[in-house]
Amino acid sequence: MRAEKEIRERREIERILEEAEVGRLGMCIDGRPYVVPVNFAYHEGKIFLHSAKGGRKLEALARNPRVCFEVDEGEVVPKEKPCDYTVRYRSVIASGEAEIRSEPKKMLEALRLIVEKYAPKERGTQLTEETVSGYKNLVVVEIRIEEMTGKRSPV
Amino acid sequence: MRAEKEIRERREIERILEEAEVGRLGMCIDGRPYVVPVNFAYHEGKIFLHSAKGGRKLEALARNPRVCFEVDEGEVVPKEKPCDYTVRYRSVIASGEAEIRSEPKKMLEALRLIVEKYAPKERGTQLTEETVSGYKNLVVVEIRIEEMTGKRSPV
Repeated sequence: MRAEKEIRERREIERILEEAEVGRLGMCIDGRPYVVPVNFAYHEGKIFLHSAKGGRKLEALARNPRVCFEVDEGEVVPKEKPCDYTVRYRSVIASGEAEIRSEPKKMLEALRLIVEKYAPKERGTQLTEETVSGYKNLVVVEIRIEEMTGKRSPV
Repeated sequence: MRAEKEIRERREIERILEEAEVGRLGMCIDGRPYVVPVNFAYHEGKIFLHSAKGGRKLEALARNPRVCFEVDEGEVVPKEKPCDYTVRYRSVIASGEAEIRSEPKKMLEALRLIVEKYAPKERGTQLTEETVSGYKNLVVVEIRIEEMTGKRSPV
C-alpha cells in the first residue's frame, strides 16, 4: 500500500468498522475463496455476526476458521478533465479467526450488540438469555481480529 | 439459500454487476482468505479490473487464480415494532478464474470498458493500443465467471 493511503490511527479504523452497515466475510474452502455480505457489530477487537444453522458459510467456517473481513465506503467523483475521474473511499481489511458460538450468554452479548447497532431505539434491552435460548436455529460467529489495515483515497 | 431469495433471471444478476461501483475480490493464499475492494467492469460473462504491478493482490492471483467476486447494495430499514428492522438488499456472488493480462490489445479492451463505466462522457475513445502500451506499471485482471448466484431480500 502506498504510504499516503494508509490510515494509521486505530481509532479511525475502528470507527469505519463501527459505522459500516455491511461487511464482507471471506473464507477459503479447499483453496477456493468464498465471500458473503453480512450485517455485523464490531466491539473491542472482535466482529460478531449471526447466522442460521447449516448453510455454506457455517460449513466453511467449521472446516477452516481463517477469515478476512472487509468493509468499504466511497463514491466515484467525475472530474472536469476529459477521461478523468477519482474514486473517494475508505476501506478496512481485517484478518482473524472465527468461532461458532451457541452458548446463551455469548449469543445474548452478540445479539445485543447487533440490535443496538441496527435498531438503536430499543438498545437490545428486551433480549434475555432465556429468549436467546429459544432461538434454536441461530448461532453467533465471533471473529477475533489479529490484524487490520485501513486505507483511504489521498485527499 | 432460501428459494424466495434467489434471483433466477440471469439478466437481472448481470444488471446488478453492471451497476455496482465497487466489487470485492476474494482470493486464497495458503488457506488464508484475502478480500479487497475494487472498481471493475462486467462484460459478457467476464469481470475486468486494472491493477498496479506488484502488490499483494497480483502475487496472490499469480499463485492461486481461483477467485470469488462479490457485489451488494442495500440498506437497513427500521420498522415500527420494537426491536425490529429489515435489511433490503441485492447481492451477487460469482466464482471463477483470474488471468493477469498485459497485451496491449487486451489492456485496451478492458480499460475502455472501465472508463466507459466510470467516466461515461468520454466513452474511452481517447485510449489506443499505443497509449495503453505506455502504461508500464499497469496490468489487467480478467476473470472468467464460471458460476454466479443472485440474492435479494424477500419483498
